[in-house]
Amino acid sequence: MNYTKRLGGQTVEFTQKPTILGCGVVVGKKEGEGPLGNDFDTVENDPLFGQETWEKAESAMVNKAITSCLSKSGLSAEDVNYIVAGDLLNQCTASSFGVRELGVPFLGIYGACSTMAEGLTLAAMLVDGGYAGKVIAAAGSHFCSAEKQYRFPLEYGGQRPPGAQWTVTGCGAIAVGTGGTVQITHATTGRIEDMGIKDANNMGAAMAPAFVSTLKAHLQDTGRTISDYDLILSGDLGSVGHTIASELLDKEGYAIGANYKDCGMMIFDSQTQDTHSGGSGCGCGASVLCGHILPQLESKTLRRVLFIATGALLSPTTTLQGESIPAIAHAIALTV
Amino acid sequence: MNYTKRLGGQTVEFTQKPTILGCGVVVGKKEGEGPLGNDFDTVENDPLFGQETWEKAESAMVNKAITSCLSKSGLSAEDVNYIVAGDLLNQCTASSFGVRELGVPFLGIYGACSTMAEGLTLAAMLVDGGYAGKVIAAAGSHFCSAEKQYRFPLEYGGQRPPGAQWTVTGCGAIAVGTGGTVQITHATTGRIEDMGIKDANNMGAAMAPAFVSTLKAHLQDTGRTISDYDLILSGDLGSVGHTIASELLDKEGYAIGANYKDCGMMIFDSQTQDTHSGGSGCGCGASVLCGHILPQLESKTLRRVLFIATGALLSPTTTLQGESIPAIAHAIALTV
Repeated sequence: MNYTKRLGGQTVEFTQKPTILGCGVVVGKKEGEGPLGNDFDTVENDPLFGQETWEKAESAMVNKAITSCLSKSGLSAEDVNYIVAGDLLNQCTASSFGVRELGVPFLGIYGACSTMAEGLTLAAMLVDGGYAGKVIAAAGSHFCSAEKQYRFPLEYGGQRPPGAQWTVTGCGAIAVGTGGTVQITHATTGRIEDMGIKDANNMGAAMAPAFVSTLKAHLQDTGRTISDYDLILSGDLGSVGHTIASELLDKEGYAIGANYKDCGMMIFDSQTQDTHSGGSGCGCGASVLCGHILPQLESKTLRRVLFIATGALLSPTTTLQGESIPAIAHAIALTV
Repeated sequence: MNYTKRLGGQTVEFTQKPTILGCGVVVGKKEGEGPLGNDFDTVENDPLFGQETWEKAESAMVNKAITSCLSKSGLSAEDVNYIVAGDLLNQCTASSFGVRELGVPFLGIYGACSTMAEGLTLAAMLVDGGYAGKVIAAAGSHFCSAEKQYRFPLEYGGQRPPGAQWTVTGCGAIAVGTGGTVQITHATTGRIEDMGIKDANNMGAAMAPAFVSTLKAHLQDTGRTISDYDLILSGDLGSVGHTIASELLDKEGYAIGANYKDCGMMIFDSQTQDTHSGGSGCGCGASVLCGHILPQLESKTLRRVLFIATGALLSPTTTLQGESIPAIAHAIALTV
C-alpha cells in the first residue's frame, strides 16, 4: 500500500480538497471589548451563559458555537457525520456535555490549546479519506472555569506575574466538508517538545519551542518557505512566546517577520485590558481563527495561512509534582 | 466526491486492510493475580512502577506498554508516524508524559473508558486513508491515581457500594499498519447517550445504553447479525452493566447470548478479588484486548470479534453539580 497522502516527516497533504463550509464563534464580554470584538458572531455578556456554574456555562458556550456553526453553514445536526471536540476541563466535560443533545457521533480529543488544530487535522482526514461528508471541529475555553481549575478561585484575587496569560472565554466551531472556498491543504502534526520550563505562569516560553519545531517540520516537509504564507499564526504564545519563537527562528536562519502573528496578542489589548502576555486557552486560537481569519480567507484578503495552535500538556498536579511542561503544536495550512 | 468508506449511519468500512502488527500490555499486581494473569506481557508488582507518585507511575506504565509494543512488533519509534493515546487523568497527562521522550507525532484523545476503541478507530483511519504507515493506539488507567482523582485518597479506606467497579491498573498499546494477520474491518463511532443516571458508583448502568446503541447501529449499518461474531466484547460494563445491556437487547429482539462477554468481568474474579461489579478504566478493555483477545485472533481460535469499549464522560465536578452521566461507546470489528 502507498501512503499517498504522506509528504514524509510529520506532514500529510489532502488531495480530495476538504474545505471549510462555515463556522460559529461565541466569546465573552472581555473578548468582545478587545480589538477583534466586532468580528465575533456572538458576544455573551453574561459570563454564566444563563447557567448556575462555570462548567455548565462552558458547556452552554460550546453548544452555542456548534449550533451557530450549523445554522451559518446551512446544516442540521443530522447532516454531520462526526463532531471532533475538546477543551481544558478535567475529563473534557465542556465538550461532552456541550454536544450531548446533538446526537452526532463524537470523538473527544485533548490537545490543550492546540485542540482546534488537532480537531481540524482529524476533520480534514475524515472528509479527505472518504469517511465523512461533513465534520465539525470545535474547541473552547472559559476564563472562570480555567482559573478555578488551574489556579485560584476568582474570589481570591490572585496576582499574576507579567509573563502570565489570560484564558480566553470563547469557543469556535468549524464545519469541514467539500465545496467551500477555504481549502485545508496540509496538516503537520507535532511532536512533544519539553525544554525543561517548569513555570506554569510562563506557558509562552514552554510552548515556543513546539511552535518552532512544527513550523520547521512543515516547511521542510512541504518545501515551502515562510514567505509562501500571507500569514503564519500561532495559537496563543502571547507576547513572551512570540518573542522567544521569533528569536529561536532567527538563530536558525528562518527570516520570520511581519507575516507572523499570535492569536493571544490579537484578541486582547494587553495595555488597556490587563492581560499581560496575552490570551490563551483552547478558545483563543479557535475564536481568532473563526472570527477574524476565516472571513479574510473567504474574502481573499488573505490567500495562504498557516495556523499553528500550541498546547501545554501539563496539569496542576504535574506542576505541583515538580515536572516540566511538555508542549505540542499542530499546523494546518489553509488556502483559497 | 464519494464518501467511499462510509457504510452510512455511524459506520465506516476500511477497504485498504489496516491490520494489527503487534501489541504491548502492562498490568498491575492485582490484574496479574486475576483469571487472565498469565496473558499479560508484564505484570508489575510495584504499584509505583519505580516512581514517586501515582501519576508518574501511570506515565511510566504507558511508556512501558508502548515500548513493549514497539519491540514486540519489531518497530522503532522512528517507524511510527503517529501515536494516538489517552487516559483518565486530568488533562490526560499519563499519555502526554508517557510519550514525551519518544519523538513521535502525537494526537491526544479523551474518550474515558472508550479510549482504546477511539484510538483504534483513528489509527485504522490514518493507515487506511493513506496518511500513515504505522500508528500506535494506546490507553491506560491506574487504580491508585484514579481513586485519588475521582473518589478518595486510598488511606481513607472508603467503602464501595456493590455496583461499583474497580479501576484496572493496566495499559495496552497496539501497532496498526498493513500486512498483519488481524484486520480492522469496520469502526462504528458512538453518539452520546444519557438516560439520566446520576450515580457515579454505577457506571455500568450509565454506560449500558451507549453499548446497546452502538451495537445496534453497527449491526444495522453493516447488515450483520450478532451470530456473525464469535465474540462481542464490551469494554467495562461490569456484571451490572452486562445484565442491563443483555436485558435491553433482549427487549428489542436482539438475541445476545454466550458470545457476549465483558472485559470488566473477565479481568478480575469478583468473588475472590473483592472487585464488586468488575474492572473499569481505559486500561480494562485495552489490557483484555491486547493480552487475551488479540492472541486468540492471531491463532485463529477466534475469527470475528466486535470490540465495543464504553466510556462515561463525566467528571467529579459534574457529579457534584448534580449532572447525569453522558456515556459513549465505539465499536471496532476485528477479523482474520
